[in-house]
Formats: sequence, C-alpha cells, structure tokens
Amino acid sequence: MSGAAGPDLAEVPEERRFLSTEEAAALERELLEDYRFGRQQLVEMCGHASAVAVTKVFPLSALSRKQRTVLVVCGPEQNGAVGLVCARHLRVFEYEPTIFYPTRSLDPLHRDLTTQCEKIDIPFLSFLPTEVQLINDAYGLVVDAVLGPGVEPCEVGVPCTRWDAETGGDTEDGLRPDVLVSLAAPKRCAGRFSGRHHFVAGRFVPDDVRRKFALRLPGYTGTDCVAAL
Amino acid sequence: MSGAAGPDLAEVPEERRFLSTEEAAALERELLEDYRFGRQQLVEMCGHASAVAVTKVFPLSALSRKQRTVLVVCGPEQNGAVGLVCARHLRVFEYEPTIFYPTRSLDPLHRDLTTQCEKIDIPFLSFLPTEVQLINDAYGLVVDAVLGPGVEPCEVGVPCTRWDAETGGDTEDGLRPDVLVSLAAPKRCAGRFSGRHHFVAGRFVPDDVRRKFALRLPGYTGTDCVAAL
Repeated sequence: MSGAAGPDLAEVPEERRFLSTEEAAALERELLEDYRFGRQQLVEMCGHASAVAVTKVFPLSALSRKQRTVLVVCGPEQNGAVGLVCARHLRVFEYEPTIFYPTRSLDPLHRDLTTQCEKIDIPFLSFLPTEVQLINDAYGLVVDAVLGPGVEPCEVGVPCTRWDAETGGDTEDGLRPDVLVSLAAPKRCAGRFSGRHHFVAGRFVPDDVRRKFALRLPGYTGTDCVAAL
Repeated sequence: MSGAAGPDLAEVPEERRFLSTEEAAALERELLEDYRFGRQQLVEMCGHASAVAVTKVFPLSALSRKQRTVLVVCGPEQNGAVGLVCARHLRVFEYEPTIFYPTRSLDPLHRDLTTQCEKIDIPFLSFLPTEVQLINDAYGLVVDAVLGPGVEPCEVGVPCTRWDAETGGDTEDGLRPDVLVSLAAPKRCAGRFSGRHHFVAGRFVPDDVRRKFALRLPGYTGTDCVAAL
C-alpha cells in the first residue's frame, strides 16, 4: 500500500485527526476497491457496532421496559442502511426498536435489510409526530441514521435533524446528541461534538489505511468492535 | 412465517435437537430466501463469531507469542469463506493467523475475502507439511474450515481432515477437535462431539426460524455472538 495519495504525515498535527468529507470518501473507496470489502459487509459491521455502542451507554439492565424503546430514523443513503442493521441488532440484544424510514432507497442492499427487519416484526412508522413531546414520551432513545455518506450517525435523545458533517454545527432544531458513533473514523463534525460519549467503530480499518490517513485512534480492547474516544 | 414446512414440533424430543444436513440446508435457504440475508453478511457474522469463540477458549493473555500462531485451513465451499473471515478477525484480535487454502473457489465472495486477508499481510501457505509434528511445532492452534455447506467448522489442535456431518465419526486420521463452533445451529455431527468446548454462533437466526426448526438453544448473554452449549 503506497501512501502516495494520502496526506503528508508531516503535516498532521499531533492531536487526533478528523477526516474531511473528501478524505472519508477516499478511505471508503480504498476499503471497497483496494481491499475488496463488500458494502453489505461494511454496513453489517457498522450497524452491529452502533448497536453495541448503544448497549454500552444504555445497558439493558439499567433501563425500565419502557426505556428500552428505541426509535431508529433511517435516511435513504448508506447511513440509513447502517440504521436498519443497527435496529436488527438492537432487537437481538432485546431492546424494542421501531423504525422510521420515510424515503426508501431502491438499492437492493437497503431492500434486503428492510425485509430482515420487517420479518422479525420490527414496527415501521408511517409518519413521525411533529410534536417533540410525543416522541420523547414514546421512545427511550432515538438513533439518527439519517445523514449522508461520509458523515456520522448520531444517537440522540431529541428528534432528529441534519448535522453538518464538516462543521458539526447545530442546525435550527439544535441537535445535541448524547452519543456519537463515528463509522470507520471520526470526521470533522466530531471535533465539535459536545455530548457525553464518542465512539469509533472502525476496527475493520486495516493498519495500512489508518497510517495512510494518519488516524490516531485509541486501541480496541479484547474483541470490542467500538472504542471510546 | 408459517411452520407448515418445518418439522412437527410434537415429534421433537425434549433434549436439544440437532439438525440433519437437509434441515441445515433448509434453514439456510430460509435465511437467504425469506429473510433476504446476504451470503456476505452471513459469512461475515459466522467468521467473526468463530474468531470470538477462539478468543474465549484461548485468550490472548494466556498465550505466549508462539502460541498465538493459528493455521486456518480453508476449503473451497462456504465454510472456507467463513474461515477466511475468521482469519481476518483473528488478526484484528492480535493473533497470528496463517492460511492454507489449497483449492480456491472462483466465487467472487471467496475472492474478495481472500484479497482482504492478503492485503493485511496474512501469509498463505502454498503447501501443508505432511509431517504432523511440523504443524504442531509451527502453530499453536489449527482452525479447520474445510468442511462443506451445512456442516461444522472445527477448531482443533491436530491437522485437519474431514469430519462426517451426519455421524460426527472420526475419520481415519482421528480428528478430535477441542472446540466446535456450530454455525447457525448444531448439526447431527455435534451430538457426538467429545471435545471440551461447543459453541453455537447463531444469534442472527430469527426466533420464528428457531421455533420452526425446534432449536432448543441456550440464551446469548449481553452482546455475545456465541453461546456455550
């Protein structure tokens, strides 16, 4: 693996480095094209890791039955696919996910992941209440898997909205997630994350790719698929 | 999910039920065709779980550097693909896998999984020493992922050979694995397994499918992907 196309390591500051949207896309291309990872494989690993992150911050044993309800909001792009996988694993981990997936992708990967959720009887909402309080009353947790490729899915306690991947700036609705799961590697938005828990789910990123993109990340423990930053 | 095509539950004995080769194939068809699981997805989950099973029985902390060497023997069929994924995760978990994969499948899934291993510098053996002692000297563990679809990959301390999935009978070479990982569900061969540790890696099997095939399996704990039988 030549580092020719990567950033000049001498320019990387000592502090942890966050990827721009372009770098995140380049990293993903490298995994897909050079390493021949499949999208199904990456989405499965990321969705599983996101569900594991939920269990770490909100362990089942600390939740009442009502608090185990999770609204997973899925967008039409890759993060939505990750959300569908996350919901499936949350059900396996004995949470009670409900999915809101208003704009369905025609991608066969999304279709298959949707079928997997439907067949294990995860409810799909046909619309989202506009009243925030209704959502807060109905769900203990909300997982935001709306954002586009190269950005971060956020696990939040308030209704979901867009979070700018470059700036991490709050939008008009003031999204303030408690937990952020960075898929593969943290992107710039994560630098301004002010919630309690930031995880990276990128154990599958090969060492050579980490070096090429100058990722300075904490080690993963044992067989853990997420690491706290 | 109708149980019409499944076994009559009244006929199932109380003790744990093992699947015949035909039933195992039917269960896999159900996952692939009805639930729309992808092969890449299932192979990824099974290979990951097999690597996790290795870490449970042979934790890194209890092994010398030399004992961390693992020979993963992969066949040309689906279990070989699981072996390739297992080897990749073992490397991620800081074991030192080497792969012997003499009959390579032309299936793009196998090719991609092979590339993933090659690109992270897992060595591939071009031939296997015929002298058992040479293998025992070189490797702390041997993972057998040779067997065909519907049967069990075995994790062993002696060189690999075929294990009959219906009878579990030792072949002429006397395969006696220490550890058996049943993928999805235990098959009949597992009923005669006499090693120390038997795991099932089938947390992904939906409840309806478990009921249909009358699988009586122990529960999985927390986010564990394997359960000890």
